[in-house]
Amino acid sequence: MKILLINPNTSQHVTERMRANAQQAVGEAATIHAFTAQSGPAIISSRSENAIALAEMLRLAACHQDGHDALMLGVSIDTGLQALREMLDIPVVGMAEAALLTASMLGGKIGCLTLGAAMVPVYEELTASYGLSSRVSKWRAIEVPSAFKVTDADPVVERALIEASKQLVQQDGSDVIILCGAVLAGYARQVSTAVGVPVVDPAQAAALQALTLARMRPAKQVSGSFARPKGRLFSGIDPDIAALYK
Amino acid sequence: MKILLINPNTSQHVTERMRANAQQAVGEAATIHAFTAQSGPAIISSRSENAIALAEMLRLAACHQDGHDALMLGVSIDTGLQALREMLDIPVVGMAEAALLTASMLGGKIGCLTLGAAMVPVYEELTASYGLSSRVSKWRAIEVPSAFKVTDADPVVERALIEASKQLVQQDGSDVIILCGAVLAGYARQVSTAVGVPVVDPAQAAALQALTLARMRPAKQVSGSFARPKGRLFSGIDPDIAALYK
Amino acid sequence: MKILLINPNTSQHVTERMRANAQQAVGEAATIHAFTAQSGPAIISSRSENAIALAEMLRLAACHQDGHDALMLGVSIDTGLQALREMLDIPVVGMAEAALLTASMLGGKIGCLTLGAAMVPVYEELTASYGLSSRVSKWRAIEVPSAFKVTDADPVVERALIEASKQLVQQDGSDVIILCGAVLAGYARQVSTAVGVPVVDPAQAAALQALTLARMRPAKQVSGSFARPKGRLFSGIDPDIAALYK
Amino acid sequence: MKILLINPNTSQHVTERMRANAQQAVGEAATIHAFTAQSGPAIISSRSENAIALAEMLRLAACHQDGHDALMLGVSIDTGLQALREMLDIPVVGMAEAALLTASMLGGKIGCLTLGAAMVPVYEELTASYGLSSRVSKWRAIEVPSAFKVTDADPVVERALIEASKQLVQQDGSDVIILCGAVLAGYARQVSTAVGVPVVDPAQAAALQALTLARMRPAKQVSGSFARPKGRLFSGIDPDIAALYK
Amino acid sequence: MKILLINPNTSQHVTERMRANAQQAVGEAATIHAFTAQSGPAIISSRSENAIALAEMLRLAACHQDGHDALMLGVSIDTGLQALREMLDIPVVGMAEAALLTASMLGGKIGCLTLGAAMVPVYEELTASYGLSSRVSKWRAIEVPSAFKVTDADPVVERALIEASKQLVQQDGSDVIILCGAVLAGYARQVSTAVGVPVVDPAQAAALQALTLARMRPAKQVSGSFARPKGRLFSGIDPDIAALYK
Amino acid sequence: MKILLINPNTSQHVTERMRANAQQAVGEAATIHAFTAQSGPAIISSRSENAIALAEMLRLAACHQDGHDALMLGVSIDTGLQALREMLDIPVVGMAEAALLTASMLGGKIGCLTLGAAMVPVYEELTASYGLSSRVSKWRAIEVPSAFKVTDADPVVERALIEASKQLVQQDGSDVIILCGAVLAGYARQVSTAVGVPVVDPAQAAALQALTLARMRPAKQVSGSFARPKGRLFSGIDPDIAALYK
Repeated sequence: MKILLINPNTSQHVTERMRANAQQAVGEAATIHAFTAQSGPAIISSRSENAIALAEMLRLAACHQDGHDALMLGVSIDTGLQALREMLDIPVVGMAEAALLTASMLGGKIGCLTLGAAMVPVYEELTASYGLSSRVSKWRAIEVPSAFKVTDADPVVERALIEASKQLVQQDGSDVIILCGAVLAGYARQVSTAVGVPVVDPAQAAALQALTLARMRPAKQVSGSFARPKGRLFSGIDPDIAALYK
Repeated sequence: MKILLINPNTSQHVTERMRANAQQAVGEAATIHAFTAQSGPAIISSRSENAIALAEMLRLAACHQDGHDALMLGVSIDTGLQALREMLDIPVVGMAEAALLTASMLGGKIGCLTLGAAMVPVYEELTASYGLSSRVSKWRAIEVPSAFKVTDADPVVERALIEASKQLVQQDGSDVIILCGAVLAGYARQVSTAVGVPVVDPAQAAALQALTLARMRPAKQVSGSFARPKGRLFSGIDPDIAALYK
Repeated sequence: MKILLINPNTSQHVTERMRANAQQAVGEAATIHAFTAQSGPAIISSRSENAIALAEMLRLAACHQDGHDALMLGVSIDTGLQALREMLDIPVVGMAEAALLTASMLGGKIGCLTLGAAMVPVYEELTASYGLSSRVSKWRAIEVPSAFKVTDADPVVERALIEASKQLVQQDGSDVIILCGAVLAGYARQVSTAVGVPVVDPAQAAALQALTLARMRPAKQVSGSFARPKGRLFSGIDPDIAALYK
Repeated sequence: MKILLINPNTSQHVTERMRANAQQAVGEAATIHAFTAQSGPAIISSRSENAIALAEMLRLAACHQDGHDALMLGVSIDTGLQALREMLDIPVVGMAEAALLTASMLGGKIGCLTLGAAMVPVYEELTASYGLSSRVSKWRAIEVPSAFKVTDADPVVERALIEASKQLVQQDGSDVIILCGAVLAGYARQVSTAVGVPVVDPAQAAALQALTLARMRPAKQVSGSFARPKGRLFSGIDPDIAALYK
Repeated sequence: MKILLINPNTSQHVTERMRANAQQAVGEAATIHAFTAQSGPAIISSRSENAIALAEMLRLAACHQDGHDALMLGVSIDTGLQALREMLDIPVVGMAEAALLTASMLGGKIGCLTLGAAMVPVYEELTASYGLSSRVSKWRAIEVPSAFKVTDADPVVERALIEASKQLVQQDGSDVIILCGAVLAGYARQVSTAVGVPVVDPAQAAALQALTLARMRPAKQVSGSFARPKGRLFSGIDPDIAALYK
Repeated sequence: MKILLINPNTSQHVTERMRANAQQAVGEAATIHAFTAQSGPAIISSRSENAIALAEMLRLAACHQDGHDALMLGVSIDTGLQALREMLDIPVVGMAEAALLTASMLGGKIGCLTLGAAMVPVYEELTASYGLSSRVSKWRAIEVPSAFKVTDADPVVERALIEASKQLVQQDGSDVIILCGAVLAGYARQVSTAVGVPVVDPAQAAALQALTLARMRPAKQVSGSFARPKGRLFSGIDPDIAALYK
């Protein structure tokens, strides 16, 4: 199987970190091909940067889908997920959605942890749009700027994650935890051991779910609201995208 | 007051129809300045076309906000509404949201009517994202292709709207009706008379709510998740947008 | 336009404060005519006092609606709102509902602040009845008895409002704040500046929404559950009310 | 035990029908004392008539509560229920609420049947206010004017109830049925036999639940939002009510 | 009336405590016949022990239903409630459900208190399954191992219950409290007096609701999803159960 | 990987059909080991039969979990799913839950189709317990007794499934369909082609999700409500189960 991974941020090293993480999850069952945005925000940190990044996500997906069995969105907040499901011929998996769905199979309440309080409402809205709000005990954020340095595991970050995860379990009644954010890759095992519940890594969950959908080979909608309309008129847009609507 | 209206479709005549409709609603209390997308879909008819149209909506909004008191989105499905509320300094109003909120003040259950069944799920998701699903009795669609000819009122369209509206009132228990779709402007009064409940025109509701927010002069968020982040890095994007994040 | 304002409490000075506040919001676009209850509770502070006050609200509305374009209820908890929408010929706006709907257009989550914890559950039930619970981050109350002295702005009240508003933004993730309670008029601007999010004044929101509905001139329901029934028998009730049901 | 029953309509014969029905349910375990409104609507058929009837309900309850162990509201839409729970010293039971709660113990989904479609939205709002919407499969209404003649069982009414109940079971998946409306008393047994699910009579459910609360002797709230406030000022209201707030 | 009480735990002294408590509630109106599990967990303290205990609950119910007017489940988490409603000919009442429904008639928000935090999520799921989550302000737990000694009232337990109940009222806005857990019987009156809101004892609520249903004599479903299927094949199961499906 | 499949019905041929179906989905990535109940209902067709079957499910799971990487429940209504997640050391996957979660990644609204209307409410309650009700457009049932003959594909069944699926897409707005019921295996491809949306087979979805969880190797909870309690007392139960709680 061949899985396409697209990072709508322009940060190449983040792409590589997600790719390696995803590849490890699927092992020899699939190959992950990763592409990075050539324009847009360096890192998405708000609703409007997510909106700005969408154009490049659509362009890269339309350009690279051929020859792949599934697309995994390489971004924590699932930029353009439902639009891409309508636009493309291959299955599309988001990291946040895949993590939430996978965690749903490991317990009752899901505790979610990210980096930076400003993104918590955005994640909550995303969770609500999937109809999964009732499964989430709480979204919490750690505030550790050093986490954004994408290097080896940082003991300060690890301690902050463990402390917040203990609150998710003991105060909020979480049965399973998700660590949201590409730079939080690599801490799941230690956090899980420290707090005594399973911890889901979104890139690994998304890669495994992309593999699941690739194996199922679901038909692309030609009826209903996810069918891609035909014979549409566009002007001045990317030709790979326009070609899909002829 | 000066209200900015942006149509993210490239259809100039639709822009003009919405502008005239909005201007009539606010009368002399405000002037509506309308702009039309220069690239993108001719008419948005699906999730993915809405995603494609977003880039031009962001560009036009960033380019033209100066000198206006509020922005009214000239499109039935509120393209980029929450992202623009974060990005811009002026209040932003969507036609679907404004119609739903205004209709909420006229009764209990809101019946919603649009053109073409394929968009009903998209409107339902939009309604859910505003937390207003419980206020809507049902979304129904008429299938009358001649409605897209943007000319004078069409008796075939009028009959279809009245028939569907009667179902919204008698079968679905609607106390008020919304006619969603720029080309449905001009039928509200006849439908209202025929079915015996008030009928809300989204362009008129949006113009009046834009006027309301313009009069209130609410402060722009500098805290919380709707504050526009500062000092962000972008590459290759529209300079009017990039300038907002310096 | 002429907007009718009815205070179902017997406190004349509270009526005057709301009237002045509402008049300022609409400026020269409308004239606010205010009436005060002649019997009932001095100040509504509980469910049962609200129920007791309802009779006088119905009487004054039936007596004074003629010659007005809309009715604004001059009370924080929207006494009799849906019943009046059925009973009267003109649009009816409640302060709590108008504030919640208007705040919905300024961000994601709405933080609500009132005076006295005992009323918080009553406001929460009211919010739920409008289907808007998911939009509210939290209802909080300050406990500052001096706020009830309806005089100039009080620095103790201002400090309490700012402190509670900071909790609404920083702990509860509110993007916009509502100050509920007639005696909290006049603090919105300072609180907004101090906490960095917009703050909505319910009397101003209600006056502007009453103006919006007056401009729209929606038809009165003659079908459905908000149509006023005809040919009904009553005994011993106010003749202005009875006359409406003949 | 002594149970107080108050009918806020002025129709004495409806009061008597409910009293007899309630008395039959509790047998010798309690005596039902019934009172009828002396002013207000002859029959409540809308939101506004319910609002008009409230004043007399409050007056009769305050006047007659002494010497009774519980109050049962003799009206299908629970006029003033939560306000009376705050105002009075004895437990208060509504017919709609009691029927819904009792039916909850007999199956999964509750099908509700009343007389006249115009009241269905009002009942749906009432159900939502109790947090019980998810338990109700559907509210349906029969349209049989002869049902309002309060005489012996009418075969036309019985056939209409059975037909609508079959739809509630077969189309809507109801496991138990409620017949809402004082004039529908006396049909429960036949409908139940015809459709094969239990049928709850609201007056009987309310009488039995009033007996349950009377036996439990729950303390009256002196804390929280259902505590009756003290030291309140009123003018021009019924002295029995005013006395409660001293 | 004869009410059957079945404890699916093997602890005889807990059965006796519940029986006495239930008998006191119904007085001379009914006789409570109690049976204790002969195999299974000594005390249910988790989801899986509840699942293990189910087999014995089903066996005892099928064996003993004859000659009784209703079944009251003698266990805090309503083991097998909906399955038994389908399986048996007599009405079935659960302690948790009966307490929640009865408390619903005493105020707005219900505060729930149990012993041991591990069971809180299980109770929350049970509450959600009844559609009653929106009525519950919060589930809280005390951690007082001495409470499990089923002897006379313990002042340490009483103090812990009062302190937690004050939080339920003052912080969580509860209008009524439920004490969940057979070993918390006997504290309701003192807690109620201390915190100023009514307190519901689940065994008493269940006994009174069993009496209510026994008096109503609802028909057993022969249609819909609660009808017991006929002509089913089983192998190796309890003959009293198998006999019901012939 | 080794995946354990347990059928709590006593029908060996149904087990074999599910095993073959599951094995086909995972291919060489895992081996499915299947076991069939030795006592209980031949086929579960109601809530109470599901409850009766639970004991054997628990026994077989406790007896066979060693040496397996995940457990897949071989039954359409996920008998004992959450209890087994607490009881066992390996991940547990239910067919209904896995199908719903997998279908969530293929569109917006999920249409669900089963055999026999009596099970629809049971599936709806199951869906609600997963917090996924808002994702399901509708549960529909076909009534084709010949489907229960577990042989080759039956053209009558196929036509009924296609017709009901068209209603799910065209009337109910479904974007993806689930065929629930072991005997509906083998129709997914034809239904998908006929109606133009993807169709999910629960056994295949469950097998692939069991493989996903087996690859992730999530830690077993030792904290929170899904931790298996220790030092518990049992009497008269299966020794393999009892051993887990020592």
